[in-house]
Amino acid sequence: MASTFAGLMLWSAVATGFSAESVEQWGLYEITLPGPTNGNPFADVRFAARFAQGYDTIEVPGFYDGDGHYRVRFSPEKQGAWKYETVSSAPDLNGKTGEFTVAKPSANNHGPVRVANTYHFAYADGTPYKQLGSTCYVWTHQPEALQEQTLTTLAAAPFNKLRFCIFPKRYQWNTNEPQMYPFEGTPPHTWNFSRPNPKFFQHFEQRIADLQKLGIEADIIIFHPYDEDHWGFDRMPASADDAYLRYVVARLAAYRNVWWSLANEWDFMKKKTEADFARFGEIVSLEDPYHRLLSIHNGQKFFNHTLPWISHASIQNGAAVEEPGRAEMYRHVYRKPVVYDEVKYEGNIESRWGQLSAEELVFRFWNATVAGTYCGHGETYKSDDQILWWSKGGVLKGQSPARLAFLKKVLDDAPAEGIEPIDKWQHPEYGGKPAEYYLVYLGKQTPTNWEFQLPKPPQGKGQPAAEGMKFTAEVLDTWNMTVTPVEGVFALKKKDNYFYADKDGHSLALPGKPYMAIRIKRVQE
Amino acid sequence: MASTFAGLMLWSAVATGFSAESVEQWGLYEITLPGPTNGNPFADVRFAARFAQGYDTIEVPGFYDGDGHYRVRFSPEKQGAWKYETVSSAPDLNGKTGEFTVAKPSANNHGPVRVANTYHFAYADGTPYKQLGSTCYVWTHQPEALQEQTLTTLAAAPFNKLRFCIFPKRYQWNTNEPQMYPFEGTPPHTWNFSRPNPKFFQHFEQRIADLQKLGIEADIIIFHPYDEDHWGFDRMPASADDAYLRYVVARLAAYRNVWWSLANEWDFMKKKTEADFARFGEIVSLEDPYHRLLSIHNGQKFFNHTLPWISHASIQNGAAVEEPGRAEMYRHVYRKPVVYDEVKYEGNIESRWGQLSAEELVFRFWNATVAGTYCGHGETYKSDDQILWWSKGGVLKGQSPARLAFLKKVLDDAPAEGIEPIDKWQHPEYGGKPAEYYLVYLGKQTPTNWEFQLPKPPQGKGQPAAEGMKFTAEVLDTWNMTVTPVEGVFALKKKDNYFYADKDGHSLALPGKPYMAIRIKRVQE
Repeated sequence: MASTFAGLMLWSAVATGFSAESVEQWGLYEITLPGPTNGNPFADVRFAARFAQGYDTIEVPGFYDGDGHYRVRFSPEKQGAWKYETVSSAPDLNGKTGEFTVAKPSANNHGPVRVANTYHFAYADGTPYKQLGSTCYVWTHQPEALQEQTLTTLAAAPFNKLRFCIFPKRYQWNTNEPQMYPFEGTPPHTWNFSRPNPKFFQHFEQRIADLQKLGIEADIIIFHPYDEDHWGFDRMPASADDAYLRYVVARLAAYRNVWWSLANEWDFMKKKTEADFARFGEIVSLEDPYHRLLSIHNGQKFFNHTLPWISHASIQNGAAVEEPGRAEMYRHVYRKPVVYDEVKYEGNIESRWGQLSAEELVFRFWNATVAGTYCGHGETYKSDDQILWWSKGGVLKGQSPARLAFLKKVLDDAPAEGIEPIDKWQHPEYGGKPAEYYLVYLGKQTPTNWEFQLPKPPQGKGQPAAEGMKFTAEVLDTWNMTVTPVEGVFALKKKDNYFYADKDGHSLALPGKPYMAIRIKRVQE
Repeated sequence: MASTFAGLMLWSAVATGFSAESVEQWGLYEITLPGPTNGNPFADVRFAARFAQGYDTIEVPGFYDGDGHYRVRFSPEKQGAWKYETVSSAPDLNGKTGEFTVAKPSANNHGPVRVANTYHFAYADGTPYKQLGSTCYVWTHQPEALQEQTLTTLAAAPFNKLRFCIFPKRYQWNTNEPQMYPFEGTPPHTWNFSRPNPKFFQHFEQRIADLQKLGIEADIIIFHPYDEDHWGFDRMPASADDAYLRYVVARLAAYRNVWWSLANEWDFMKKKTEADFARFGEIVSLEDPYHRLLSIHNGQKFFNHTLPWISHASIQNGAAVEEPGRAEMYRHVYRKPVVYDEVKYEGNIESRWGQLSAEELVFRFWNATVAGTYCGHGETYKSDDQILWWSKGGVLKGQSPARLAFLKKVLDDAPAEGIEPIDKWQHPEYGGKPAEYYLVYLGKQTPTNWEFQLPKPPQGKGQPAAEGMKFTAEVLDTWNMTVTPVEGVFALKKKDNYFYADKDGHSLALPGKPYMAIRIKRVQE
């Protein structure tokens, strides 16, 4: 690599999977330098690098990776020639410069996911991202073979996001000690919080990279309450919390599939206040050079998702997706994407949060979908080996994933901008894009007939339906995963102040079963 | 009155209904001084007074009331001796001092309404205030006889709050010109926004005082979109908006029954931005010495009710009160009292927002109630004389007010702290105070039997129900306004992880009709 450092080439820059001189856009370019090993390098040494392309400069925090290795990871958002210069409190690490070239992204690299159209997401290259998440809280803490099995399962599953924790978890069905610990020390309780364990994080970030290869976003849960002083990671002093946050961000932010979840069930953490989490949010927001998606997940008490550093509302509330009218309500209060990351789980355990039928979970996904929001999956089937997907990963046993794969196909075929409610308060069962595309979800109703009619969208919510417009329709059985085209074309005629109907009054025949949807598309003329 | 002003007694202090030297707590103490009449006294003269009781001082803005009269109105929050001194840019109005005594409040004066217990309201003296509002947008702009009729109607109605506008309104069923205009000028379109019309405001504030006598809070709507440039009050320049706001606050804030509503349907005002309303909110919040309740009402787009100057969420959304599970959702996002000020109206006009049945409107009030929120009434029955309650007042023609009077009795009998959801996501039909009082609303269900069972509240939400606790029950027919005690006592026994039931498995017989509620009270032992 090009370098003005004329001494011994003791340091190196590598881009994972690429030569040092080139990295792809949104890839990961890593600089490694040898530096001081005395004292506590994690705490004593400030290290960062400034990357520049013309007037565009970005300062990226670095981190100590043990064994005298200091690293900075950069994920370039622009192609072309870049330069850098390191800045450090340690002379050996300061003022090192270099150059490299950023190439166009490879075929499956669409960049990081960002908020798009207020309520939706898209990859940085503009490709729509329709969130379909699952949860395996501590899959990276399980034996290696189980982790590999989880990855194999995910490769065949419909999910494009996975929520999981950095810290190990102690909870029902999860009382095994983890493979490694995030800090130096002796389990269960004696830790040096000022010395992260590099081996732990090297492994953890490999799992992020593994998910990236599968096209899965990593929704990383930074704090959680499922410790209760077993290890004490839920009650570190404030200075340790903040140092941990900075370390995590410096190590992981350059992985383009990273999302930050400040906490799971933040309000169940007995030793943290709401102000602590506000401080955490500001730290992550300031430290992360890429402004990855950032949210915080609730137990009973909602965080204030209107705060500017929160990119989207990550919500636990199963009741909110029991019907689309409810699901939409958080959209207009937050004016951000709403992701129902926890809506209870498909399973059969005793707790009411873990005993949804597959039908009910799929129903909730569809309610979220037509309301213009996104939903999360989890699975809690009792198991002799104590391996429940929701906590440890492994294999999927439920019946919802196949139906969610069907939903994924529907989402892929939906408008790129995202599905919006058409008339949120009066007819929440209609989602879509006014005058172009409608998805009507009938939920648990079992009609044998559906009158073809389209509501007028509210003023300012897109082109309204109008007389003469022509549409085709399909009947979707969301449980049996079938798409049945309806014969003929429906032409609109004003019905009343609020609806257009087919000019000849045509209806659609339906099979009298639950979980049906109707997909309506404008005929291109 | 005691005064250090030794010159001619051209100025006076009066407390409405009291001698000048004494006023009751939360009453209105008024100082009037003669001052300059040249130029534009509204704009040119700064005038205020500092009131002090020991170290407790409060600066109260004054206003020009025409004819050379400058006034300051003070509503003391503490009894005992007070002093004041005026401050003004006009020498004649500056440095005037005085003393007066604040007596204990009279029997029907409980002080202003404030937020209590996060989600509820109470008068300043601690008396609970259970909001039961109605709406007559421009009743004060109608002929005097009609205004008097409105007051007579209100005296016999259950409402303890009325929403109405300062500005006149031009809209369906309301195209008559008002009796007076808020500014000097010539209708419809030539106004001097820098010269408020004192006669207009003298009349307007008399109506606030009239409502106060009836025990009705005045929810004053400061801006609204129902003008559309007919008079242009919806599109004044920013400087005129701000001066108007300051004038309104200086004149009206001392009336203890004033609530501020920055706007009706703020987002429908085409010439105002969200930032304008944020500025308005900050102005009112800073100018009002008493920090009266302050909110803003939406059309389609919700304002950010998490902002610190907003005391409670004033919401238009009829769909949100179609079931208690929805109604509760804004509570946990705003953590403030939620008042559904507009949920559509009882009536029979063509617009879908004005054709609820009385049953449906009452149903919505009850859903709001058990969800720990509050609701607003309005009536839109077609009328040959164009007098619809919702706009002009007059007489009530609907069937809901009698049922809302019944609801009022239930609320008066409910826990002083307010009704809270017991298990908001799983069993939203239960409101009350855990282990003490439950109100279960069955809505449109028509059961003939109800199993006696009480959900465990979530952790930290009050004393849980426990084995052995004893309760009595009553069946409330919320439509037919009957209360039927159920014979016997129910003693609790754990049913499962989430419920306690009667130890002998007793149920309640119900009449198989809709709109039933069950009221359950702990037996005091």
